[in-house]
Amino acid sequence: MSEHPIPAYPVDPINRVKRRHDRGFYDHQTVHKLLDAAALAHVAYVIDGQPFCTPTLFWREGQYLYWHGSTASRMLRNLSEGEPACLTVTHLDSLVLARSGFNHSADYTSVMVFGTARLVEDPQEKLRALTMMVDRLFPDRTATLRPSTTQEIKATAVIVMEIERASAKVRAKGIADDEEDYDLPIYAERLPVHTVLGAPEPCVRLAEGVARPETLSPYRTGRALEGALSEAYQAAYAGKVGS
Amino acid sequence: MSEHPIPAYPVDPINRVKRRHDRGFYDHQTVHKLLDAAALAHVAYVIDGQPFCTPTLFWREGQYLYWHGSTASRMLRNLSEGEPACLTVTHLDSLVLARSGFNHSADYTSVMVFGTARLVEDPQEKLRALTMMVDRLFPDRTATLRPSTTQEIKATAVIVMEIERASAKVRAKGIADDEEDYDLPIYAERLPVHTVLGAPEPCVRLAEGVARPETLSPYRTGRALEGALSEAYQAAYAGKVGS
Repeated sequence: MSEHPIPAYPVDPINRVKRRHDRGFYDHQTVHKLLDAAALAHVAYVIDGQPFCTPTLFWREGQYLYWHGSTASRMLRNLSEGEPACLTVTHLDSLVLARSGFNHSADYTSVMVFGTARLVEDPQEKLRALTMMVDRLFPDRTATLRPSTTQEIKATAVIVMEIERASAKVRAKGIADDEEDYDLPIYAERLPVHTVLGAPEPCVRLAEGVARPETLSPYRTGRALEGALSEAYQAAYAGKVGS
Repeated sequence: MSEHPIPAYPVDPINRVKRRHDRGFYDHQTVHKLLDAAALAHVAYVIDGQPFCTPTLFWREGQYLYWHGSTASRMLRNLSEGEPACLTVTHLDSLVLARSGFNHSADYTSVMVFGTARLVEDPQEKLRALTMMVDRLFPDRTATLRPSTTQEIKATAVIVMEIERASAKVRAKGIADDEEDYDLPIYAERLPVHTVLGAPEPCVRLAEGVARPETLSPYRTGRALEGALSEAYQAAYAGKVGS
């Protein structure tokens, strides 16, 4: 037994990967890496028995996930008390065309996080979170912006959820036909899917002499979005708590 | 009043777009177009008060959505009776860097569908659904495959959900700063995100003389995945019910 076990999230019936359990991972490193390579997540929550699945931009700070909403949003009505939620990030890597319908598949990574979502009510914590909401994507950018007004801060709600349980699922094997099917005269392929950055479109109303800052260097044309987001995340949290 | 009103989903407190209601659409055409341009969705459902957000491949047929799971999966335990669910599709089009934190945003489209998810139990309906699960992506492909075994059909569960309520949300305006902020010496840009097809990777064990079929022509290297999925969908359902 290792003297330094790999830090991992506890596994129980809620987060155990049941289908294809060989694809499941629970260690912090795998879970966090997948979260930090993403900006978009889907959050499931329940209001009066009705499930909702809402897309949102989010980020991680240590054992906590943050996302935001308007104070007018549906999700926030119940959140002062804390509500159970599940935040999921999925990245589609390919479609897989096999020799049988059953073996058609997709390569993907996904991570599901379970916890209790709460409104961030402390003004200092909220201000810090609003800063990192931008700076996690674009390191040190907030300091260069027009400061937020009291009205803007009031109109933005920040939600925080401690990662109580998490599981990652990775399918990365491409074509996996039954051995006896490979000889059949059937076409099969892996069809890769890439999520990449296009060329930046600077605002047509930029003030004279304003150039693209060096801090945006992770965002290069043609690069995989995931790589850019991971690099920006590392830069944003370098030396800070929660990295 | 029009004699031919645009077919639309009913709007009520569950699906009304509350935050930024100017971005909300409920007409069938907008909702269906966004669904048919996607393969990946996230489904929210509830087990014992705990929300789950699960990624899945899905497709639409008329007023119904279908997706699949293993008969071992967590979601299916409660589905024979029918369970409320919410299926959401989101496409991220850009990150938007504005001159204030508050105006940082993203261009995106999303569609949320609400209904009651049920297991498909009728064997004929299940077989037809398993065919369209593949053919919706790759028109007429199932007829060319090694037929499914009884065991494979048993091991695959198909879930169907009538679209009871739906709403689409579209944000496509790029940079939208406060008028008085445009003169500030702050860099702003729209950073496009593209989800595109890579070069197909044919199986290294293809039988001799087996070539890529013409029916895969929507899947061209470098093309937007959404465009390919829409074209394949149109071809798959051309002249069939549910298109």
